[in-house]
Amino acid sequence: MFLIPALASIGQSSTIAPPLSAWVSQFSSPLLATLDPENAPAVLSGVLLSLVVIYLASKIGGELSKRLDFPPVLGELLAGVVVGVSALHLLMFPESGAEAADSVMMTVVNFISGLSPEAATQVFEAQGEVISVLAELGVIILLFEIGLESDLRQLKEVGYQATVVACVGVAVPFIAGTVGLMTLFNVAAIPAIFAGAALTATSIGITSKVLSELGQLKSREGQIIVGAAVIDDVLGIIVLAVVASLAKTGEIDVSNVIYLIVSATVFLIGAILLGNFFNQSFVSIVDKLQTRGNIVVPAFIFAFFMAFLGNAIHLEAILGAFAAGLVLDETDRRKELDEQVKPIADLLVPIFFVTVGARADLGVLNPAVPENRAGLLIAAFLIVVAIVGKVITGWAAFGQPGINRLAIGVGMVPRGEVGLVFAGIGAASGVLSKPLEAAIIIMVILTTFAAPPFLRLAFGESADPPEDAEPVVSGPVLAGEAQTLP
Amino acid sequence: MFLIPALASIGQSSTIAPPLSAWVSQFSSPLLATLDPENAPAVLSGVLLSLVVIYLASKIGGELSKRLDFPPVLGELLAGVVVGVSALHLLMFPESGAEAADSVMMTVVNFISGLSPEAATQVFEAQGEVISVLAELGVIILLFEIGLESDLRQLKEVGYQATVVACVGVAVPFIAGTVGLMTLFNVAAIPAIFAGAALTATSIGITSKVLSELGQLKSREGQIIVGAAVIDDVLGIIVLAVVASLAKTGEIDVSNVIYLIVSATVFLIGAILLGNFFNQSFVSIVDKLQTRGNIVVPAFIFAFFMAFLGNAIHLEAILGAFAAGLVLDETDRRKELDEQVKPIADLLVPIFFVTVGARADLGVLNPAVPENRAGLLIAAFLIVVAIVGKVITGWAAFGQPGINRLAIGVGMVPRGEVGLVFAGIGAASGVLSKPLEAAIIIMVILTTFAAPPFLRLAFGESADPPEDAEPVVSGPVLAGEAQTLP
Repeated sequence: MFLIPALASIGQSSTIAPPLSAWVSQFSSPLLATLDPENAPAVLSGVLLSLVVIYLASKIGGELSKRLDFPPVLGELLAGVVVGVSALHLLMFPESGAEAADSVMMTVVNFISGLSPEAATQVFEAQGEVISVLAELGVIILLFEIGLESDLRQLKEVGYQATVVACVGVAVPFIAGTVGLMTLFNVAAIPAIFAGAALTATSIGITSKVLSELGQLKSREGQIIVGAAVIDDVLGIIVLAVVASLAKTGEIDVSNVIYLIVSATVFLIGAILLGNFFNQSFVSIVDKLQTRGNIVVPAFIFAFFMAFLGNAIHLEAILGAFAAGLVLDETDRRKELDEQVKPIADLLVPIFFVTVGARADLGVLNPAVPENRAGLLIAAFLIVVAIVGKVITGWAAFGQPGINRLAIGVGMVPRGEVGLVFAGIGAASGVLSKPLEAAIIIMVILTTFAAPPFLRLAFGESADPPEDAEPVVSGPVLAGEAQTLP
Repeated sequence: MFLIPALASIGQSSTIAPPLSAWVSQFSSPLLATLDPENAPAVLSGVLLSLVVIYLASKIGGELSKRLDFPPVLGELLAGVVVGVSALHLLMFPESGAEAADSVMMTVVNFISGLSPEAATQVFEAQGEVISVLAELGVIILLFEIGLESDLRQLKEVGYQATVVACVGVAVPFIAGTVGLMTLFNVAAIPAIFAGAALTATSIGITSKVLSELGQLKSREGQIIVGAAVIDDVLGIIVLAVVASLAKTGEIDVSNVIYLIVSATVFLIGAILLGNFFNQSFVSIVDKLQTRGNIVVPAFIFAFFMAFLGNAIHLEAILGAFAAGLVLDETDRRKELDEQVKPIADLLVPIFFVTVGARADLGVLNPAVPENRAGLLIAAFLIVVAIVGKVITGWAAFGQPGINRLAIGVGMVPRGEVGLVFAGIGAASGVLSKPLEAAIIIMVILTTFAAPPFLRLAFGESADPPEDAEPVVSGPVLAGEAQTLP
């Protein structure tokens, strides 16, 4: 074969897709530094050491949290804060403006590898990039697993309520936040709208993990929360896209808004419809495979492809993974798949939670620094709006007598990674002032950290225990509110 | 807590390890381009699409190979060649000198994300880096799993034979290759020594996978091959370090040679001794954990830490992972661990094999291009030395009557990733001429691709079938040689 020049030459010229590759042929930037292959062992050292730190932190934090009767995920987040930029500086990311020398781990790697300053910067950035992508794969697999555990029919049942809860949970914090910032704190319109938008999106990852730990993922409340969080995420990303383009151009790009709304709708409905057709093909393909990984590899091809699609149409990758999980939940091989996804999730999901904690810089909370004080006041306001604006959404779930409305509202409170995306994009685009950026970060941290214990309390107070859980009466904190439930 | 300035200020200054961080504080290189956070979704798209391509290729290649009665790993490698730089240009890596525009996948990502030329280059490099590290994690997990499946006592039994096999397998190809290149082809001393060194290291990953697929990993031959490949790897890396420093300075760095020999010895003996102590602690820690991932996370903390250590002392990460697997193989929780590692390996190992195939540029085999012809002659010579120099090692396994010597020799033939490391470093340091570099790559590809079917044939011819496998008599190709076995 190699003696035929026509065939053999394919290795030396790009014969594939010339029309597409032609218009990108100007891509070549000799000024950008490519990672020197000699530094590849140092990058690997950095990644391995990061993973060891992440796993140690997640296990220590999770186990302590469990023993203190908190959800393990809270311990994982706090352990992330301890090893991250706020305290030990073990796990640092270049996006935050940190340099290689700020990272204790890079100091260790550098001590071992004896890198030049340029090489150290390259290695620091490369390993940060790898850990960031692993964390993203972690949240993708988390959502895939949650999709697998969610019952599509049950989610359809609460779809209407979930939509109303999500819309109220987006509209109330957005309007109250924007108007409040403009009238009470004299913030200009565009930053105020941006900060208001940052209050909208619920962190589906954190809420779902806590619900799963409480055994409430399949309860009616759990299904409404997850359903609303999914819709919320879509609405939040639409709001972000609109606000970001508003911030850039000074006017709302209507065609982009329409594109986003249409693509999100088509994507989700398409995934659910496709599900009925794809289930059969998936099982028949899996049954024919004879090599190792015959279930798990096809399942991840589907999950990663859906995540890619979700990302490609400028929605979120996690949305695609969630849809993939929902679809595969309906197949006959679900049990085997569940079992095999578990260890993969055990290994990748903690990377997400620990890095969320590690990235959060609690230093911006320091009231001793004068420029933080304006941020603290604004932060206090944003936190009140963020909590109240979501807690009231429980009462928007109409036609559900006896439902735990407080639990639904509290379940919508954490902002987590989505809120951090808002803060990051706002800071990068220069729309947000330092105090406003700090205030958003504080709001995200507190809602994220406070929601799990309060969600636990709210479910503990439940007047209507889920079918598969014993009613637990504990915690007098929210008793007054809980008694107002029908 | 946040009201106490002393505590709260830790987020804003680096109070950890000032003496260590001080000497690296000059690290700051504003000229290097940091990945723009805005491009993170494009990197994730690239990684997800790469993974989909890798999994599809590995499953299609593996299943076809299995149906044609070849080991699945051969199909995975060839499928990697098809999607890689040699043919479809779907999976491309920046280290090979490819640009974003050369990669069909980057064209797709760019079509979706509308990146600037600089951003496209950054995204291409970032996603290539992530996939490279995932492939390295794949080979680490592969070796960890092989360690788990290997019986330490049995490996100890064959340790002496394995050492002799390894030493012969390093010395013969090294000396024959170097002398042959200098006398027959008038190659200068240093490039000849470098090319000779590239002939030394056996690819433990590929051989072990094939052995495992043949059910021969636990046979005496399998244990000698794996043991010899491990020692071979260590010897090969020592040779590489020596030759690379020879190429740089013109003289051999004796202290570095001694350091490498000592650290490799201490590492392996240390891991085996530590094993007896660590087993007990591992089980008692695992028994105390109450949260998800109670077995798999501690096991991977250990495996990744050992891999980090292996990498840190300038040996290979895979050596550390192999040692970790050997140690945990002795614990009581081994069965559970085996089951949970399997799906993780199913997901990460194919990334390694597909990318090895994708990186190999078969275009350098094209005899129509004049400058390739010198390389082809040299390649033919190197291939003969590479095969003969390893096949004869089987007859160095003394004191083992009735053993399949041909199988041992053939099992040592594939060079795989280690050979590619030699070619890469040689090319980067400028020691190797283009034809010599091409010849080494051809040698690596052919030995890697040829070894699995020949290994299969050699075991099929076995006069001494392993205890847990039926003797299979097939393939007349090597019958003449096989009959010379005692």
